[in-house]
Amino acid sequence: MRHYRLEPGRGLEWLTLQQRAVPTPGRNQVLVRIRANAVGFRDLLVLANNYPLPITPGVVPGCEGAGEVVAIGADVTRFGVGDRVAAAVFPQWVDGPFRFDSAAQLGTMIDGVLTEYVVLDEQGLVRIPEYLSYEEAAALPLAAVTAWHALTAGAPLRPGQTVLTLGSGAVSLFAAQLAVVAGARVITTTSSAAKADRLRKLGVDEVIDYRRNPDWHEAVRELTGGAGADRIVDSAGPLHKSIRAAALGGEIALVGYWLSGDAGAEPIDPELLFNTGAVVRPIATGSRAHFEALIQALTVHRLRPVIDRVFAFDQLPEALTYIGSGGGFGKVIVSHS
Amino acid sequence: MRHYRLEPGRGLEWLTLQQRAVPTPGRNQVLVRIRANAVGFRDLLVLANNYPLPITPGVVPGCEGAGEVVAIGADVTRFGVGDRVAAAVFPQWVDGPFRFDSAAQLGTMIDGVLTEYVVLDEQGLVRIPEYLSYEEAAALPLAAVTAWHALTAGAPLRPGQTVLTLGSGAVSLFAAQLAVVAGARVITTTSSAAKADRLRKLGVDEVIDYRRNPDWHEAVRELTGGAGADRIVDSAGPLHKSIRAAALGGEIALVGYWLSGDAGAEPIDPELLFNTGAVVRPIATGSRAHFEALIQALTVHRLRPVIDRVFAFDQLPEALTYIGSGGGFGKVIVSHS
Amino acid sequence: MRHYRLEPGRGLEWLTLQQRAVPTPGRNQVLVRIRANAVGFRDLLVLANNYPLPITPGVVPGCEGAGEVVAIGADVTRFGVGDRVAAAVFPQWVDGPFRFDSAAQLGTMIDGVLTEYVVLDEQGLVRIPEYLSYEEAAALPLAAVTAWHALTAGAPLRPGQTVLTLGSGAVSLFAAQLAVVAGARVITTTSSAAKADRLRKLGVDEVIDYRRNPDWHEAVRELTGGAGADRIVDSAGPLHKSIRAAALGGEIALVGYWLSGDAGAEPIDPELLFNTGAVVRPIATGSRAHFEALIQALTVHRLRPVIDRVFAFDQLPEALTYIGSGGGFGKVIVSHS
Amino acid sequence: MRHYRLEPGRGLEWLTLQQRAVPTPGRNQVLVRIRANAVGFRDLLVLANNYPLPITPGVVPGCEGAGEVVAIGADVTRFGVGDRVAAAVFPQWVDGPFRFDSAAQLGTMIDGVLTEYVVLDEQGLVRIPEYLSYEEAAALPLAAVTAWHALTAGAPLRPGQTVLTLGSGAVSLFAAQLAVVAGARVITTTSSAAKADRLRKLGVDEVIDYRRNPDWHEAVRELTGGAGADRIVDSAGPLHKSIRAAALGGEIALVGYWLSGDAGAEPIDPELLFNTGAVVRPIATGSRAHFEALIQALTVHRLRPVIDRVFAFDQLPEALTYIGSGGGFGKVIVSHS
Repeated sequence: MRHYRLEPGRGLEWLTLQQRAVPTPGRNQVLVRIRANAVGFRDLLVLANNYPLPITPGVVPGCEGAGEVVAIGADVTRFGVGDRVAAAVFPQWVDGPFRFDSAAQLGTMIDGVLTEYVVLDEQGLVRIPEYLSYEEAAALPLAAVTAWHALTAGAPLRPGQTVLTLGSGAVSLFAAQLAVVAGARVITTTSSAAKADRLRKLGVDEVIDYRRNPDWHEAVRELTGGAGADRIVDSAGPLHKSIRAAALGGEIALVGYWLSGDAGAEPIDPELLFNTGAVVRPIATGSRAHFEALIQALTVHRLRPVIDRVFAFDQLPEALTYIGSGGGFGKVIVSHS
Repeated sequence: MRHYRLEPGRGLEWLTLQQRAVPTPGRNQVLVRIRANAVGFRDLLVLANNYPLPITPGVVPGCEGAGEVVAIGADVTRFGVGDRVAAAVFPQWVDGPFRFDSAAQLGTMIDGVLTEYVVLDEQGLVRIPEYLSYEEAAALPLAAVTAWHALTAGAPLRPGQTVLTLGSGAVSLFAAQLAVVAGARVITTTSSAAKADRLRKLGVDEVIDYRRNPDWHEAVRELTGGAGADRIVDSAGPLHKSIRAAALGGEIALVGYWLSGDAGAEPIDPELLFNTGAVVRPIATGSRAHFEALIQALTVHRLRPVIDRVFAFDQLPEALTYIGSGGGFGKVIVSHS
Repeated sequence: MRHYRLEPGRGLEWLTLQQRAVPTPGRNQVLVRIRANAVGFRDLLVLANNYPLPITPGVVPGCEGAGEVVAIGADVTRFGVGDRVAAAVFPQWVDGPFRFDSAAQLGTMIDGVLTEYVVLDEQGLVRIPEYLSYEEAAALPLAAVTAWHALTAGAPLRPGQTVLTLGSGAVSLFAAQLAVVAGARVITTTSSAAKADRLRKLGVDEVIDYRRNPDWHEAVRELTGGAGADRIVDSAGPLHKSIRAAALGGEIALVGYWLSGDAGAEPIDPELLFNTGAVVRPIATGSRAHFEALIQALTVHRLRPVIDRVFAFDQLPEALTYIGSGGGFGKVIVSHS
Repeated sequence: MRHYRLEPGRGLEWLTLQQRAVPTPGRNQVLVRIRANAVGFRDLLVLANNYPLPITPGVVPGCEGAGEVVAIGADVTRFGVGDRVAAAVFPQWVDGPFRFDSAAQLGTMIDGVLTEYVVLDEQGLVRIPEYLSYEEAAALPLAAVTAWHALTAGAPLRPGQTVLTLGSGAVSLFAAQLAVVAGARVITTTSSAAKADRLRKLGVDEVIDYRRNPDWHEAVRELTGGAGADRIVDSAGPLHKSIRAAALGGEIALVGYWLSGDAGAEPIDPELLFNTGAVVRPIATGSRAHFEALIQALTVHRLRPVIDRVFAFDQLPEALTYIGSGGGFGKVIVSHS
């Protein structure tokens, strides 16, 4: 079977496609034939060794993958052969808050899913619905789970509240789609009329062009009669503008946007935060329970991920180069079929 | 000005239309020209003195009304002349949980709104949106606020969860409409194909005919793959069937349905409740804050109350007789115009 | 090694002490040398096959045990040889709400801990603090975890609120101890002056003799100036009295007390529940996360379980007979040392 | 009757003691004979016109006062003559989250309580317990309510969790006292051995000298085995050190410490906040419901505020000068008796 391996900090040339025997699942493990992966800016950071988690040299990369169970180990109760599944990014984070003792992450600390076959613990998998293709299901584990977590953590989001999402990154697109089905009024920032159109087709109520309107936080206040946004999924920054756009007592879900290398990580003034009265809550992906609840919501509404481009499995370097060039709209998929 | 008064326990004949001078608002009070009221089964209970709150003899009945501010007293800051408003059923319950010291209720303990003019404390009013008529706004204070409270109390309702509503009473209709915009999958019970059609037009996903299917709790389980409903707004009973229809860890919002005289108040077995693992939470109308959040949700989605029939102000006895005869679909309105 | 096995429904004679080889831990498993167990009424129900979970014929009984890790299997990361641990009653319920797919329970569906050596999944164990003996730690997994869950589920318990516990069963004793350190005012019912003294020594503020005062719910109202108890841990029933003792908006944690065969499972009237406004929440033991938070609380306050009697490992039948005779105060322990 | 008035920005000379007739309570109002006030750094900021709320020229200063109801206006239901009461800092903020339409604050936007008699809305008062003197009750409305709010907002504080308070300011002292009765392990920073002793007498478990140990956040990590504090009441800053001291998923209640002119308002790096995973929640005093719950907690535990010095009513300038000189331990009281 073929699988990728990377050497952190050594760039694309050291991302190699290798062969090994198909592994055998142990106790509580299943063997999954991966059918599709998703990749994103995170994978470039891992490749560059700029990711905030330790990266094992020679690790199999990839934290987003979907496929089919082809064999099961001893004592497996949750899945059978033939089940369609996706992998949770943190396979040991089952439910409840994130904990250091469940922090092993696919594709950095432990081997990931950019491989044809992978053995995974049954606790780290979720069932995927029939209406989604493997390519669509592979788009979910990182950005969609983060968006779900961002919208469901802290004070409950109620129909009629205003949700602000920033830009057209993958987390932002999922957050907008999910906020729409949650009954929120959704405001999004973007940089072009073409993207604005696509956002409106996803159900976004108001789009602000942040190029024409760099003080987009003031535009948010205007669109909300001065009140500000009740919930902000800040996956693009700068945080100080999100704070200025927030309602009194609103919540800002802080996703690690500066990782993408933008100039958006300017420091913030505690006094500004205090005066706004908004809560800032860091959000790091989510648990398997988040993933399952997300899938339930997607399924009821037959929501589909926005997919930008699909590459073949052996085109992973091209996919990553494409991501590095910026500018798509939706997830980049690596399909094995 | 004309206004109604009632003598608890003495029936329709003692519900009289009387004259008095238009009152003057005191400090923190406003004078409202009522334009529309809603009435319902509660008003029959009050008339019959079968309501669980004390009823002041000679009280002005009615807890649901909307109108226009026509004068303001000293120190009023929230409203001005010309503002369109609706009254909160418990004018002193501003926010937070219900408390005995804010339990004065319009139309029972204190004078209500079945009157042409009423003086109300500015804290007990909410602003109504332009897109709603006075007749529509008058439909909200009791049933819609209860439905909002029932859906937002306790564990947060998430998109993709299943909400069960029982029958086509006013609380049930609002709960179904609100659950739809909250992204839930909505199941409702009903007694006729005609009502089932109307429910589906409101967005309900599944309708169970409880006449053909008296074990509707089992039908709910089937429709949910055995899991049961995550949230049940029980405004019709019997509670033991709701419990049997509930998901493990689900929540049942218990509205006082037995008040309507149905045979639905059978006792429940603690062991049944324990084994189901569902939370039972009594819900009594809601605060002004609930009312305001409800209006925000309605406004974003341009939701309109379902109105059954409209009577003129001097036809209140006919309206109450109509309600007593049972069987409508939506709120019964008394219009002053 | 010696271990017990039981045949459900066949009574004490079929509870047999048997020999087998010490097992070997597989992947993610550890071998624990059990040093102490606790037993209680639950074990009698299991023996009698009156427990609400299926019982595997020939199962190793016991869901409460503490001991020492003596060997570890492959991929174990949470524990090492020599660690002092206790087993979670539901080894797969790590965190978050209870789910059917994590419902395997020690000593009923799967082999339990009334054995000298047991292989357990590392996810189903918690570390025990130095200041607790194995006998004390063995007292925690069932009753103390239930009490912690009962006090921490739902609306947060605040210092100054009133907690009512019923009787001197193990859940009740732990709930009282924990409520005291949470800053609550604690009221408890009991049947004798001797027990009342012991309860006061645990920090209980008020004790009501329910024999002299069968309307103890009214006594609770008197002691709270008419308000009622904010939180009730109902581990003894009858539930209708708990409801009558509850504050408006209070919470009743419903533990499965009727299991003990008392006449306390009388049905309740939905109208009574509605009028009280209290939430009823079924509580079934708790997750590993509950267990860990409990241990943190116990450790900070150096709380110790109340232990009634200690039996030797081969005296298990005597221990169960003692429990069946009723009447102790605290947990019954089976010690291996 | 005598009362103070101030001219914002003009200093102590323009803080004048004046005479006027005792006012008469209107509808829903009561007349209170103030018996004691508390003053603090906030009053210096108001005097200097450096407070973040608008200050009405000639306003009666003071937001902390307790006294006796001596007359009641029309329609008053909550209080009678002779009741002992304290005023809520935001008299219109009854319950629920803070809102702009209830933002009128005593002593800045509207007349305050540094007066012998004051007319207040009955909704803006709380009953004070018998065991507290007026001087003690006057110490509560600002700092103790803030501390209560800080400890009860967001994720529930559980017994056994670690609470960090910073320094010996009034909010910090109350937070420490309340965290102790809530069963937390309490760590506090301070600047002297004498203060450390007094903190330990209040029940604080660990005291860190921040002069000797400017990296007190690292000391907090050491004292918590690397985990960090679960809840931080940051009333002294700098916030970036609080963030570094916080547990994964912990909560930082951000009180407006920079108001005191300290150099503690350094900007914070969003990446630092993200990596810690702690929630930052701004806290501004609290509602009347917070005040009432606080009093319930204080009463059950017979807690008393720490009082630094007591001045006479006509010594207000001396009291403010004393506060400006820094350095006390506890609240500064102005007594009318």
